[in-house]
Amino acid sequence: MSSTAFTGTELPIIQAPMAGAQASAMAIAVSGAGGLGSLPCAMLTHDAMREELGKLRAASTRTFSVNFFCHAAPAPDAAREAAWREKLARYYAEFGIDPTTVRSGPGRAAFDDAAADALAPFRPAFVSFHFGLPPPALVARVKSWGSKVLSSATTVDEARWLEAHGADAIIAQGAEAGGHRGMFLTGDLTTQVGTFALLPQVVRAVNVPVIAAGGIADARGVTAALALGASAVQVGTAYLRSPEALTSAIHRAALASDAARHTALTNLFTGRPARGIVNRFLREMGPMNPAVPAFPLATGAIAPIRAKAEARGSGDFTPLWSGQNATGCRDSPAARITRELAGIG
Amino acid sequence: MSSTAFTGTELPIIQAPMAGAQASAMAIAVSGAGGLGSLPCAMLTHDAMREELGKLRAASTRTFSVNFFCHAAPAPDAAREAAWREKLARYYAEFGIDPTTVRSGPGRAAFDDAAADALAPFRPAFVSFHFGLPPPALVARVKSWGSKVLSSATTVDEARWLEAHGADAIIAQGAEAGGHRGMFLTGDLTTQVGTFALLPQVVRAVNVPVIAAGGIADARGVTAALALGASAVQVGTAYLRSPEALTSAIHRAALASDAARHTALTNLFTGRPARGIVNRFLREMGPMNPAVPAFPLATGAIAPIRAKAEARGSGDFTPLWSGQNATGCRDSPAARITRELAGIG
Repeated sequence: MSSTAFTGTELPIIQAPMAGAQASAMAIAVSGAGGLGSLPCAMLTHDAMREELGKLRAASTRTFSVNFFCHAAPAPDAAREAAWREKLARYYAEFGIDPTTVRSGPGRAAFDDAAADALAPFRPAFVSFHFGLPPPALVARVKSWGSKVLSSATTVDEARWLEAHGADAIIAQGAEAGGHRGMFLTGDLTTQVGTFALLPQVVRAVNVPVIAAGGIADARGVTAALALGASAVQVGTAYLRSPEALTSAIHRAALASDAARHTALTNLFTGRPARGIVNRFLREMGPMNPAVPAFPLATGAIAPIRAKAEARGSGDFTPLWSGQNATGCRDSPAARITRELAGIG
Repeated sequence: MSSTAFTGTELPIIQAPMAGAQASAMAIAVSGAGGLGSLPCAMLTHDAMREELGKLRAASTRTFSVNFFCHAAPAPDAAREAAWREKLARYYAEFGIDPTTVRSGPGRAAFDDAAADALAPFRPAFVSFHFGLPPPALVARVKSWGSKVLSSATTVDEARWLEAHGADAIIAQGAEAGGHRGMFLTGDLTTQVGTFALLPQVVRAVNVPVIAAGGIADARGVTAALALGASAVQVGTAYLRSPEALTSAIHRAALASDAARHTALTNLFTGRPARGIVNRFLREMGPMNPAVPAFPLATGAIAPIRAKAEARGSGDFTPLWSGQNATGCRDSPAARITRELAGIG
């Protein structure tokens, strides 16, 4: 199946949803250029989501994808939280933060009935999920609008699970990809494989279209992914310095520097492994620290440290999400990036 | 530069040297089919090396590559060795092994003057190294025969280093690759990136031809690697079940099973990270164990456990080297595998 046949777009380019780093403006630009733009909703209130979806609707009749997280909410664990804050005590002291004022959250909301209520009037062409799929009734509800359902697989087992549970297409998320690993059947990082290995194995394992993600930074990468059997590609990092992105100046500077050549999977910022540029926090705490609270509860403890450091112009405690190939990440309009990825720049 | 222009072979396929798993028979088959066969010498005595090189010379006038390790020999560390054996004590007990009889080694020999003496009469077209390059005088000596020098880079920094130190081509070894990581400027596994990310960045960073390795299992993988700028590909895992391979029956069975879908980088067998199928030893000791003796000294402690387990038909303690994409690994002649990789099967 060609990408165009599946996505209905001119170009086989899907802009990866990047919660916190972009909203409707980027999706509008990418869809306007012939790709498939995505709106990440994991960090939006329902009101904010409705507002962004309204902008998408107003801007264009083109198709969009709307993305949600679908993790199970963890039980609060006061002892674990306290132990983690104890490990961060030196940073609270360094930045003059009173640890008793540090709040939990804000966390990320999982897709639920209320989110579905807010989404329903917009009937997006695509709804994509990260960390598996929501409960079957919610998947059925999304499909009842005519939306096609996408989700990410990081292993062959996850790809098979997603197909069996109703995914209309599967994003094969190679280990090169930036941001959160979509892994949901295992927490074992040794199961995470590179795009060159994952993509053809997923293509072989399922009958639905497969979208390649991870390490794709330019037109040659897109050509390579299609050669390996992808129906389309999903690209995130390349868009992070575009004017339509909400990426902070600190994050943009890191992406433009040699520091971007060294990323790691880290659970320090949210509790789940996500790929970002190695900074002081990762170096000092170890990128994967077993003491970190469960996703998304870890976001609270680091927030004030990050804020204080950023106020000093430092990205030492900022999640500098990036894939392993930031070479395509330029200060260039999202529409141009989209068309250049498709080789028609 | 096209692969043919660099390797002088009909096909852009280099058979990866796999010490312990193949000798001249596989190299002869691959070169005979139009690819570039490789003879791994890291585990051969000089006499055995001369014998194998003699077979290559006798079999064909085609070009071959001869591979050596070039690690620095570690200082013996009795305390570390004793501590590691203490951790293995339960296995010595389980298999009825008297720990006092366990010998060090056999280890792997690094390329040195004596190896160069043995190699010189054969003037191979290509000499490839793993773990960097030997000292400049030895590199110069190899080049004085007309041999072209290859080595593996696992990061952009390593690629630039190899080019600056005389490599005529660089193998970009993506994290998907089986066997030993060629890493030599760092021991930090977070620096290891997938082929999709590494290959185009190395191609951009150096002016010599770049050979792609890691996750390439079939003709589509070769096409994809060439699209990403590779001049040729190096493939290992796909050959491990060929009749020309010396792969053990236990290893072949693991490669043919679903177990091959889960590999990990492990230092347990030799002291350096190498990718193999996850088995009982990796699960119980953790794939990367900080107590392991330095490469290649770790090979001694595990040897009798492995031997006893294998005698019972078990691969629980065997290094089951494999890349992350074993789908191309079939019981098929090496010549056929070579031509199928090139899309002319």
